[in-house]
Amino acid sequence: MKKPLILVTNDDGITAPGLRTLIAIAKEIGDVIVVAPDSPQSGMGHAITIDSTLYSKKVVIDKEKGAPSEYSCSGTPADCVKLALQVLLDRKPDICLSGINHGSNASINVIYSGTMSAAIEAGIEGIPAIGFSLCDYSWRANFEPASQLIKKIVLEALKNGIPKGTVLNVNIPKTDGVEPKGIKVCRQANANWKEQFDKRTSPTGREYFWLSGEFELLDEGEDTDIWAISNNYISIVPTQYDLTSYKAMAHFKNWRLNEH
Amino acid sequence: MKKPLILVTNDDGITAPGLRTLIAIAKEIGDVIVVAPDSPQSGMGHAITIDSTLYSKKVVIDKEKGAPSEYSCSGTPADCVKLALQVLLDRKPDICLSGINHGSNASINVIYSGTMSAAIEAGIEGIPAIGFSLCDYSWRANFEPASQLIKKIVLEALKNGIPKGTVLNVNIPKTDGVEPKGIKVCRQANANWKEQFDKRTSPTGREYFWLSGEFELLDEGEDTDIWAISNNYISIVPTQYDLTSYKAMAHFKNWRLNEH
Repeated sequence: MKKPLILVTNDDGITAPGLRTLIAIAKEIGDVIVVAPDSPQSGMGHAITIDSTLYSKKVVIDKEKGAPSEYSCSGTPADCVKLALQVLLDRKPDICLSGINHGSNASINVIYSGTMSAAIEAGIEGIPAIGFSLCDYSWRANFEPASQLIKKIVLEALKNGIPKGTVLNVNIPKTDGVEPKGIKVCRQANANWKEQFDKRTSPTGREYFWLSGEFELLDEGEDTDIWAISNNYISIVPTQYDLTSYKAMAHFKNWRLNEH
Repeated sequence: MKKPLILVTNDDGITAPGLRTLIAIAKEIGDVIVVAPDSPQSGMGHAITIDSTLYSKKVVIDKEKGAPSEYSCSGTPADCVKLALQVLLDRKPDICLSGINHGSNASINVIYSGTMSAAIEAGIEGIPAIGFSLCDYSWRANFEPASQLIKKIVLEALKNGIPKGTVLNVNIPKTDGVEPKGIKVCRQANANWKEQFDKRTSPTGREYFWLSGEFELLDEGEDTDIWAISNNYISIVPTQYDLTSYKAMAHFKNWRLNEH
C-alpha cells in the first residue's frame, strides 16, 4: 500500500517543539512534508498575505528527526497551506496536520487561531485536515504522553475520512506527564475573553497598550470541549467553515427589508 | 427617546471612503464613535495583536462630515473593537457597524475578512453587529446608491435585534450608479479560491511570490449570497461563530477512539 502523504504545518513557527513532535508522529504513519511559518504567527486568525511578498526556502531544522522536505515560509499559516498546495507539493496530500499548538484553541479560541486557520484552509481546498493544540503555553510543554492518542486520531481520520465541509479541532489537556483519559467528540463551548488592556507609557512619553484578558466560560454543558479538557479528555470538535446560521434564518421573516 | 450609540469600524483604515460613507449613514441614526485601524488591514482574518504593543489616538479626518469622536488604532479590526469596548467607550454601544469594505466579503471570503472579524468580535461581546461590503474594489467606488438600503438594514436591526450568537454579513452589488433591486437573506455560497502564485525574482536574485487567485463558485443555489449579488440584490447572511458542525457529529460514531 502506498504511504499517505502528510502535510504538516503550524502557527508557532517551524522550530516549535509542538511541530517537531507532530512531525515525529506523522513520520510513523506516512511520507511527511513540512511547510511552516519562519516565525511565530499566533493570534493571526485566518490572515492571508495579499499586500506583500512571500518568501519560502528549503530548510533542515533537525537532520535526524525532521522530515526529508521542510520549507519555511514568510507568511501566515493559511499562506503556508496555499503555497504548499499550489507550488511546493507535486501531488495532493492525503491529510493536513496543523500544530501541535503551544496553547489551547478550544472554545472561542478557534476564531483567533492560526493553527486552525491552516487546517481550515486545507479543508476548503478539499483536503482532510486536523488542528492539534496542547493546553499548555510553555515552550517546554510535555507533548509525549499524548503522542499515541494523536496518532490514533490521525489513523482514524485516514481510515474513515472527515465529513465534507468539516475540519477537526483537537485540544489536548495539559499532560503533566500522564496520558489523557481518552478522546471525546464535543461541541465548541460558549465562552469569551474578558479583555483587559494594560496601559503603559513609553520612555518617550507615548501611551500604549498591551492586550490581555481572562477566559470566561459561559457554558455549563458536559458535551463541550472545555468540559472534556477539564476532565482530562482530548476533545475533538468537528468545525465547519460554512458560517451560515440556518437556525437564525426564521428571525428575519419579521424584518421589513423590501417594503417602501 | 435616547439616540442609539453606534460604534463604527472597518479594515480598510480610518480614511477609507467606505468608512466615511458608513459614518455619514450612522450619523443619521444615532450618536457615532469611530475606532478604526490607522492603516489598511485587508485579509487580516480574525487576527489579534498579542505579541506587540497597541497605539491609539484621537483624530479628526473630516471636521464637517466625520463623527465627533474618532480614534485610529495601530492594531487589527478585532483589536479596534476590543479597545473601543474596554478602553475608549464609556457605555456599551447599541450596535457595531463595520465597513463599508471596498470589495466583496460574500461566500468563503468571510473567512479571510477583517471587516467581518470586527463584527464577529463585537458579536462575541454581546453587541449586535453588521459587516457591510461593496463588491467593488475601487477606492473610488460609488457607495451612494446603496445608502438608503444600508440605513434600512441598520434600522431594522436596531428595531428587531439580531439573534444571539449571530452577526450579519451584508454584501452590496457594485452599484454602477443605481440602487440595488432589494435585499435578500441568504446562505453563504460554497466556493473557494483557485490560487495562483506569481513567482518573481528580486533585483538581488531572491525568489519571491505574490499570492493571487480566481474565485471559483461551487454552488448553483438561488438562495446564496453570490446569487443575490449577481442578480443585483443586497445579500444578508446571518453568520455564526459557533463553528461546531452538529450535522457532522453522527459520522464519528464509527471512529474507534477509545478502544485499545
